[in-house]
Amino acid sequence: MTTTAPIVTTARERMQLAKDASRVIGLLSDEAKADALRAIADAVSDAADRIIAANADDLARARASEISEGLVDRLRLDLPRVLALSAAVRDVADLPDPVGRVLDERVLGNGVHLQKVAVPFGVIGSIYEARPNVTVDIAALALRSGNAVVLRGGTAAQSTNAALVDVMRTALAAQGIDPEAIQTVDDFGRGGAEALMHARGLVDVLIPRGSAELIETVVTQSTVPVIETGAGVVHIVLDASAPVAWAERIVVNAKAQRPSVCNAVETVLVIRGGAERLVPPVAAALQSAGVTIHGDEDVRVFVPDAVPTTEADWSTEHMSLDVSLRIVDDLDAALAHIRQYSTHHTESIITLDDAHTERFLAEVDSAVVMANASTRFTDGGEFGFGAEVGISTQKLHARGPMGLPELTSTKWLARGAGQIRA
Amino acid sequence: MTTTAPIVTTARERMQLAKDASRVIGLLSDEAKADALRAIADAVSDAADRIIAANADDLARARASEISEGLVDRLRLDLPRVLALSAAVRDVADLPDPVGRVLDERVLGNGVHLQKVAVPFGVIGSIYEARPNVTVDIAALALRSGNAVVLRGGTAAQSTNAALVDVMRTALAAQGIDPEAIQTVDDFGRGGAEALMHARGLVDVLIPRGSAELIETVVTQSTVPVIETGAGVVHIVLDASAPVAWAERIVVNAKAQRPSVCNAVETVLVIRGGAERLVPPVAAALQSAGVTIHGDEDVRVFVPDAVPTTEADWSTEHMSLDVSLRIVDDLDAALAHIRQYSTHHTESIITLDDAHTERFLAEVDSAVVMANASTRFTDGGEFGFGAEVGISTQKLHARGPMGLPELTSTKWLARGAGQIRA
Repeated sequence: MTTTAPIVTTARERMQLAKDASRVIGLLSDEAKADALRAIADAVSDAADRIIAANADDLARARASEISEGLVDRLRLDLPRVLALSAAVRDVADLPDPVGRVLDERVLGNGVHLQKVAVPFGVIGSIYEARPNVTVDIAALALRSGNAVVLRGGTAAQSTNAALVDVMRTALAAQGIDPEAIQTVDDFGRGGAEALMHARGLVDVLIPRGSAELIETVVTQSTVPVIETGAGVVHIVLDASAPVAWAERIVVNAKAQRPSVCNAVETVLVIRGGAERLVPPVAAALQSAGVTIHGDEDVRVFVPDAVPTTEADWSTEHMSLDVSLRIVDDLDAALAHIRQYSTHHTESIITLDDAHTERFLAEVDSAVVMANASTRFTDGGEFGFGAEVGISTQKLHARGPMGLPELTSTKWLARGAGQIRA
Repeated sequence: MTTTAPIVTTARERMQLAKDASRVIGLLSDEAKADALRAIADAVSDAADRIIAANADDLARARASEISEGLVDRLRLDLPRVLALSAAVRDVADLPDPVGRVLDERVLGNGVHLQKVAVPFGVIGSIYEARPNVTVDIAALALRSGNAVVLRGGTAAQSTNAALVDVMRTALAAQGIDPEAIQTVDDFGRGGAEALMHARGLVDVLIPRGSAELIETVVTQSTVPVIETGAGVVHIVLDASAPVAWAERIVVNAKAQRPSVCNAVETVLVIRGGAERLVPPVAAALQSAGVTIHGDEDVRVFVPDAVPTTEADWSTEHMSLDVSLRIVDDLDAALAHIRQYSTHHTESIITLDDAHTERFLAEVDSAVVMANASTRFTDGGEFGFGAEVGISTQKLHARGPMGLPELTSTKWLARGAGQIRA
């Protein structure tokens, strides 16, 4: 017997329990699901002390292993954060049920009545890093859309996740709902992630959340269908006709409002005809906001203190107050740069030229393509979805910000009266 | 240098050409795409002699290697079949353009105008077996939906496919459309399939068509997102209340009308309370239609000449005039059997009991779930889609019969006037 085989077998047993539970969860009424989430929200806030104590264990281990302060901060749960988590679950409870929507309906010539309805996926798997809020967030979104969930969070958050999962399962059971609908495979370490990625037939879709590296690993190794969420090497193009005021405020907002998120801009491409007019004020506005400018040779004519760009800058998601500026000859050159380096998340053009707007919107192959708006709008909350599962950068099933409806599949129902095919 | 590296490199070069061409194809008007398809339809019928001659080479090789007559028949193109292929392309040309549909539209509180529009995937890859009609079929569907296509057909059809691809590319070029939008990697043998399955960033979606084994290989090995089309271990449940006339005609139609297709029934489950009334006439009707009945012990009480079933029968897609009959205690037992053995393609119940109908429709987790209709209706043509890309048995992106709209992705377009995020 090898050392890994029993681990995988047991993770599979938990996934089987999730699958069995999914049949019941999938048939719950809108009200039952909303009530279950409200019970979870109450349970999470009631158990705040216990959750924070478990989190303290994780924090102590994290500090002992000298991980960065940024990661420690992501891992930390204090009372306001636990209450915010609880409130987020309540918000998900208030969203409309995505299950049962009739998406297509037709009556065939022979009288067979067809309906395409939204149904839960069944079991959603998620592999993510050491952010305990994701544990509650994904579980709530999965349950609200009638799915069971199998969680594999970062090892650094293992004690916190165990407490959160136990609190949620207990709350489900108290509502008379099978607690097996929420599973964790954290305690199987890497074997838990491996089992999830190879759980064809048990897990219907896998959603990785975290670093580009984590997502790449899951996408390339998983045999379960994956929804790729993603890294954002996001571009803004300043057209020759861009108003200075729009250029300044949009670029500063897109970079500095929250630099650590995927919809923050990384590269600003300035069309040469507008460079002299636009680069100095936009650079000054960025620098006033504390942004470090990386510039190519042409940019450094206007911004002498810019850090010289290297080839690596164009494909880097800084997650920090750094932005790369490049001057390009024309819109074609800007589009070519985006084709080469974009991660297909979000790109925006600032322009008064309608023809350029339409070309940009039509030709850029990204999840969200904008004209004259900040890339920071690419967000489920901003789009009015009420909650966000992630931002899909792939083209299959969902693209861009995903809400609850993206956690459903479909099924065709056919009602006949003895019809056969001629 | 290894022997495989240069092969893959060159297959990648062709995929890069397809990707470059996809940018132009994706922006073509409805009319331009329809005209291109009509030009291809003309070219295919005009080149019938050349295509049939190329096909004769493949047929000669096939006969020399002693493959089955069934496979030889699938491989064969004669004049009526070439003309049917051409007519099918013309039908696809007549379908509405799936690109540009506005699927969602919202104006944010700050005035940013959002539209979710249907866009082509970009490059569609297809790996399929020796059926040369698929070469033309998939190319036509891909082009009609604004996509470039990379084809990998069965080696047995290589000469035919080469002629068909050349005819289609020449027709595109004559229309002033980049012929690189249609690529084949047949000549790279297995390396062509390998390259397609690992072409992340070049190929947007891969659609395998053929045997369960081929599809399983692609699903488990591909790092490119796959739309799984599928094998059908299809079930019909005869409820205790099933009218004999409906049971007879639906079961016979579902098995015997065309036994070699995925929507043909493989297993009939009879609820015990109706067995005595239903099994003898249904079995007699099946036998009159030339069907061999495999039955469990309980069935053989009514059909003494039935072949005894084995465990393997329940998961077998016969593709022939064979059907397995089993008597089960009640609807729960029927649902449990389906959960265990179904490939989630199509299942139907014959019943007059409305509660049983609704339970069956709600609880069976398949792409198409029917009451009182033949499973043979699971078909893009029958559903009124005008053309069929395949029948998806997965839950991501598309489920059930896929038409042209399933060959598109989406993109959010945002139009603002300087808005930034608060």
